[in-house]
Amino acid sequence: MSYKSHTVVNDPIYGFISIPNKLIFDIVNHPYFQRLRRIHQLGLTNYVYPGARHSRFEHALGAMHLMGLSIRSLQSKGVQITDEEAIGAQIAILLHDIGHGPFSHTLEKILIKGLHHEEISLVLINKLNKEFDGKLELASQIFQGTYKKKFLHQLVSSQLDMDRMDYLNRDSFYSGVSEGIVNYDRIINKLNVANNELVVEVKGVYSVEKFITARRLMYWQVYLHKTTLGIDQLICAILFRAKHICAKEGQIDCNPFLKFFLTSSIDKNDFMSNEDVINHFLNLDDFDIISSIKGWILHEDQTLSYLAKSFINRNLFKVELSNEAFGDSKVDDLKAKVMSQFKVDRDLLGSYFYEGIITNNAYNMDMDNIKVLFPNGEVQDIAASVDLLNISAMSKQVKKHYICYPKNISH
Amino acid sequence: MSYKSHTVVNDPIYGFISIPNKLIFDIVNHPYFQRLRRIHQLGLTNYVYPGARHSRFEHALGAMHLMGLSIRSLQSKGVQITDEEAIGAQIAILLHDIGHGPFSHTLEKILIKGLHHEEISLVLINKLNKEFDGKLELASQIFQGTYKKKFLHQLVSSQLDMDRMDYLNRDSFYSGVSEGIVNYDRIINKLNVANNELVVEVKGVYSVEKFITARRLMYWQVYLHKTTLGIDQLICAILFRAKHICAKEGQIDCNPFLKFFLTSSIDKNDFMSNEDVINHFLNLDDFDIISSIKGWILHEDQTLSYLAKSFINRNLFKVELSNEAFGDSKVDDLKAKVMSQFKVDRDLLGSYFYEGIITNNAYNMDMDNIKVLFPNGEVQDIAASVDLLNISAMSKQVKKHYICYPKNISH
Amino acid sequence: MSYKSHTVVNDPIYGFISIPNKLIFDIVNHPYFQRLRRIHQLGLTNYVYPGARHSRFEHALGAMHLMGLSIRSLQSKGVQITDEEAIGAQIAILLHDIGHGPFSHTLEKILIKGLHHEEISLVLINKLNKEFDGKLELASQIFQGTYKKKFLHQLVSSQLDMDRMDYLNRDSFYSGVSEGIVNYDRIINKLNVANNELVVEVKGVYSVEKFITARRLMYWQVYLHKTTLGIDQLICAILFRAKHICAKEGQIDCNPFLKFFLTSSIDKNDFMSNEDVINHFLNLDDFDIISSIKGWILHEDQTLSYLAKSFINRNLFKVELSNEAFGDSKVDDLKAKVMSQFKVDRDLLGSYFYEGIITNNAYNMDMDNIKVLFPNGEVQDIAASVDLLNISAMSKQVKKHYICYPKNISH
Amino acid sequence: MSYKSHTVVNDPIYGFISIPNKLIFDIVNHPYFQRLRRIHQLGLTNYVYPGARHSRFEHALGAMHLMGLSIRSLQSKGVQITDEEAIGAQIAILLHDIGHGPFSHTLEKILIKGLHHEEISLVLINKLNKEFDGKLELASQIFQGTYKKKFLHQLVSSQLDMDRMDYLNRDSFYSGVSEGIVNYDRIINKLNVANNELVVEVKGVYSVEKFITARRLMYWQVYLHKTTLGIDQLICAILFRAKHICAKEGQIDCNPFLKFFLTSSIDKNDFMSNEDVINHFLNLDDFDIISSIKGWILHEDQTLSYLAKSFINRNLFKVELSNEAFGDSKVDDLKAKVMSQFKVDRDLLGSYFYEGIITNNAYNMDMDNIKVLFPNGEVQDIAASVDLLNISAMSKQVKKHYICYPKNISH
Repeated sequence: MSYKSHTVVNDPIYGFISIPNKLIFDIVNHPYFQRLRRIHQLGLTNYVYPGARHSRFEHALGAMHLMGLSIRSLQSKGVQITDEEAIGAQIAILLHDIGHGPFSHTLEKILIKGLHHEEISLVLINKLNKEFDGKLELASQIFQGTYKKKFLHQLVSSQLDMDRMDYLNRDSFYSGVSEGIVNYDRIINKLNVANNELVVEVKGVYSVEKFITARRLMYWQVYLHKTTLGIDQLICAILFRAKHICAKEGQIDCNPFLKFFLTSSIDKNDFMSNEDVINHFLNLDDFDIISSIKGWILHEDQTLSYLAKSFINRNLFKVELSNEAFGDSKVDDLKAKVMSQFKVDRDLLGSYFYEGIITNNAYNMDMDNIKVLFPNGEVQDIAASVDLLNISAMSKQVKKHYICYPKNISH
Repeated sequence: MSYKSHTVVNDPIYGFISIPNKLIFDIVNHPYFQRLRRIHQLGLTNYVYPGARHSRFEHALGAMHLMGLSIRSLQSKGVQITDEEAIGAQIAILLHDIGHGPFSHTLEKILIKGLHHEEISLVLINKLNKEFDGKLELASQIFQGTYKKKFLHQLVSSQLDMDRMDYLNRDSFYSGVSEGIVNYDRIINKLNVANNELVVEVKGVYSVEKFITARRLMYWQVYLHKTTLGIDQLICAILFRAKHICAKEGQIDCNPFLKFFLTSSIDKNDFMSNEDVINHFLNLDDFDIISSIKGWILHEDQTLSYLAKSFINRNLFKVELSNEAFGDSKVDDLKAKVMSQFKVDRDLLGSYFYEGIITNNAYNMDMDNIKVLFPNGEVQDIAASVDLLNISAMSKQVKKHYICYPKNISH
Repeated sequence: MSYKSHTVVNDPIYGFISIPNKLIFDIVNHPYFQRLRRIHQLGLTNYVYPGARHSRFEHALGAMHLMGLSIRSLQSKGVQITDEEAIGAQIAILLHDIGHGPFSHTLEKILIKGLHHEEISLVLINKLNKEFDGKLELASQIFQGTYKKKFLHQLVSSQLDMDRMDYLNRDSFYSGVSEGIVNYDRIINKLNVANNELVVEVKGVYSVEKFITARRLMYWQVYLHKTTLGIDQLICAILFRAKHICAKEGQIDCNPFLKFFLTSSIDKNDFMSNEDVINHFLNLDDFDIISSIKGWILHEDQTLSYLAKSFINRNLFKVELSNEAFGDSKVDDLKAKVMSQFKVDRDLLGSYFYEGIITNNAYNMDMDNIKVLFPNGEVQDIAASVDLLNISAMSKQVKKHYICYPKNISH
Repeated sequence: MSYKSHTVVNDPIYGFISIPNKLIFDIVNHPYFQRLRRIHQLGLTNYVYPGARHSRFEHALGAMHLMGLSIRSLQSKGVQITDEEAIGAQIAILLHDIGHGPFSHTLEKILIKGLHHEEISLVLINKLNKEFDGKLELASQIFQGTYKKKFLHQLVSSQLDMDRMDYLNRDSFYSGVSEGIVNYDRIINKLNVANNELVVEVKGVYSVEKFITARRLMYWQVYLHKTTLGIDQLICAILFRAKHICAKEGQIDCNPFLKFFLTSSIDKNDFMSNEDVINHFLNLDDFDIISSIKGWILHEDQTLSYLAKSFINRNLFKVELSNEAFGDSKVDDLKAKVMSQFKVDRDLLGSYFYEGIITNNAYNMDMDNIKVLFPNGEVQDIAASVDLLNISAMSKQVKKHYICYPKNISH
């Protein structure tokens, strides 16, 4: 398919998404970007919300679409944004998640040590920039926040960025948790720029308040849903066990790209310096993980087989969440029961019993704050507004303890 | 049309609304209820949000529909509700707003002194009860809160009632202010009863939080929108002026039902004791008010004519809102300008310059609080939850000062 | 409110509708256009579909919005449309219904003889053109179809115009008859121009087929719904009777603007030549009709009172629809029963018994046909396509007979 | 998770779907049913409509939900359906697609010769019936159409079944092709039973007409979209080539479950008689196919590698569709170019050049027709209705020829 000025993608949320120009068309068709079709936006959240099967591909396109709307809204208010900057900002948001691997938030510590997906995104943006003869230079600067017009970076990454705006809507839409829906239209309509920073006009503050509440709700109802949490722990335990078997036996039956990461110990330096590592990473996706775990049901290691079977058949572990720490006696008792019932010693306990802490704050007062613009030109932090005391309230970090263990353990 | 067990009404929000039985079918077809078709749910909010033209008729049916869903949800959890109680609760919510007159919140002080629409609802419910041979007795008790199962009354009137659940959804839907949409499905699914009181299960707290935020937003974005506020003031000023002219001249050209209220001074006692007053009230609706005001454009009283013309042609007054009181000097200056420009004296100033205070709290900690049910059976006030500090924050009353005057006054 | 480049109106269907420039802003705020707020798009269809209470005001804005989208779509394909032409086309569609009076399709034969609402629209467009110093000249030409770029007129009025595109969507949305929803986004995206005519690209034919089917369905399910038909007949009979009483008694109690039309016999020439007639027409709206009919419940003429009461309390007549003519014996029998039961003679029968024929064809092969553009540049009538035989099928006129009489007549 | 009477699943289309009882809860949690999470409803349609990534799992639950609504609708009209029959019908529709394998419509001829997915469904239903001690007996009879109440089978499988009702809605929702949306609410509300057969009341015919048009549109716009067609052909060619390599070399690197089917020649008899074949089939899903194809990019067979790479990077073949057969000269010319450019002989041509015919009729007059019930009790075929000539028109089979070849072949 060759690019035409009205090339569009059908999106169930926004209707038609136009591809703005030939360069973006070529980026979208590049294997790096097409790969995102095979990375689910929400990992295995479809175990809880069956419709939530969308990929990072759609999210990236959606965020690009909202970027286009925001730029037109700002331009209509007299904010100077050149065509080149508009395209740069759209590419920056399109590629902001290009570095995500399979089940990213869960597996990034296991597959490649100490490497955050945003660092991978930057590596890949720069590789693409070379391939496209430097045409992504401006996009790279906007992505990194080094470009002079700071507000363009804020549209890509801040507490009111197009990333959040799209993912809240999209995750709500597909999960059916309609409370996460954000009136992006109104917020975008009320965006403006003051002192080179992105601001929201005072008429839009209630929509922003609603946006923050929506995000808070999505965290507790979806992203940190206790069942999702349990699945994430389970998939970690499986990969961890598979890696352990590889270390002992030198190999494990699975997809070749995954095998590469299980049999070697890759860290940030390897990734940065070794083209082969990058290529293996780019070949790896959710399909390999699921397909490999399914194969491990037949593995002779009883622990790996048990975990794989639990995972594939969705025979999930029990998860308990609490505002306070679980007492030692309860935890010790459960651990003893797990060890006795599964006939495993303390070394293997970590495969069957998971514990930890999750935290979230819907609005972060220590980050790049959301600023409000008043008709008289004054600019104020949104949480400072006398009407919006609940935003300060929501900026308080919420912290929860969890434990997770096979369902048939009684206590 | 005769009643059949699958008689339905098409509702753009919920799809088909079933009419549960013949009694409710007959109530819906009664002139008292049909009258609600001619009373707009949001008065003249369509001057700000053009789609918001729905009537109290649809709202009442929608609330009845949600009541049915709630009752089924509670029954599925083992809460005892008989068929008779179910019908009673549905009739109670169906008729909870039957006492509303035209532009109720605005005009109830002007047309009938000291009479609140809820008192009128009760009068009419009791009249209908007689007409239907006592079959509305239980509904009347539930409406008044005198029936032993208190939770049924709470479904009709409390901080988590079906009235709010429907009106937030409906007002959002028609105004296009999508932030007011409430996931009624999830909240209803999480309702339960403990100690004879309506409670929400802990899994539903984030949805309730969202519901309270939605209500807060709808207040500031729609119900107390400053343009709406200005229109309400204008319509009051018009009726007040018309009443003044009647007092002076003995009559005024307008619809006969409206004329009745303008030419006599009716108070609560008259209404309660005089069938004729009730009948005139039941004949009066939004159409008479608008049609009469339009006629007054041609009235010889210049003030009445000016106000009517401003209103009909939507040449609205300027409204200023402020967290603090407006200084005397500003107010005095504006008043002087108004008097000079319109060549009116202090007596007539009230027709051209309006001032006052509006207040709102999204959640009221002094009312019948929303209670949360924990899996261990414990019940707690929602605002007391450590995770939900923002609900306490939202329970703080917000108070705003306003002034309102013709747009062409410069200051 | 003064115009700013980002002035928007909140629309529940399209989200924000931008007002493109100051001229259009001023037209929207003109009393002629504001009047449309008081003319319901679908008359009394809310008696059948309670949500269908939207006005011609929203429809006109919506159609203007779609015109803007269509123009941008065509421009992106290289069709030459100047800024001036774009504004002209938007004004033309904005004002295409400006000549509608109250319950137009029903009452236009009764209030003003022989005058079609489109002729009134043209009179008003030309009056506005004068008032705006000739700035609506191009809009007027596009409206009339005299402008050289014929496709602009086709966007205003043809079998694929923005009028239909908006009203199908809007009427579906508010009535809750979701089958009428049209994927305007896809159709607009597939519009193009060939030989100065509007065409749809072949990729869009299934959407157009769906659009025609949707229109067909809306006709039978909503616009010609038998209950709606009965209401229209009833309101005609009421006004006809009121006019008869005026003729006999010289006057009737009602709103002054309506009285003007009831007491005089106005025809097309009067309207065209007499400013006073136009002004009275512009002052008349749905609110006057409803309010006046309500007053007539108390009228001493028993026929008028009976009809008014039936109408206001929605005690509707029985309607029978049939593909074949009703036999004389059945009709005569019913008429005899009506006369006997209501104690009226043949002169008055027309107030209680209505009969007639309705017809509809979803696609008209004799009008300006919808043309399809193939990739090779060929253009073909859509109904000629071998894949779309059902469009020819739908172009066949469907004709139904109806009779309508009080419900308590038994036969 | 143990079953409670209000266990629900969140569905973005219908809101909450209740699981009606413990038996259905256990079936849903059975590995056979959970497997459907890994079978996409529309194969690789997400290459064209990115949102269309839903699985057969959601579809089966959705169809069960609609079955519940239909049963309640029929019961409200006095149709006798016992609780046991209601559960039986819900299980029958829940399991109607349980026999689907990966990319079913495309691959079922390649993996297992001569076995249709419906036959597999029946095998699996009967296996489950044994496992659940005969509790699925009635469901099995309803599924097969052997149960006395024929209309229950028609709700599972006919031209107006819950399968179509859900998949049209669901495929529309996720693809964003909103024209496929069906007003299931209205159709279900108008269902009835006459002479033991499912019928639609005459008031519902326009909705049924719309449903058939929607289905027709979805076929041409989505299911038989030419790009989807090309992808299906490509995936077939890949598997076919892999099977060829296996035949020659005895094996191929890939997922073990897929390898089983590639290295052996399995037919219907093997499947019916060999438990091991069934188990391998139940272990195979879309994830294995995609993951394996990705691995084959590195395969030494140039054809396999080329096809795999085209597929994974979405470098799709060109597809031409035509109402008439492509002329021999054009086809021969293209074939010659393909052979020359790819340096392959006639044996390998089938890997690079695909041709064939697709057909569709939106309504089939030779099948179990949709019957219309008139108020007088008469029943008629919907296509016989004088108003619905377009249904006959749509029942005509549409037939299209296609050819498909690498994009860089010029002609």
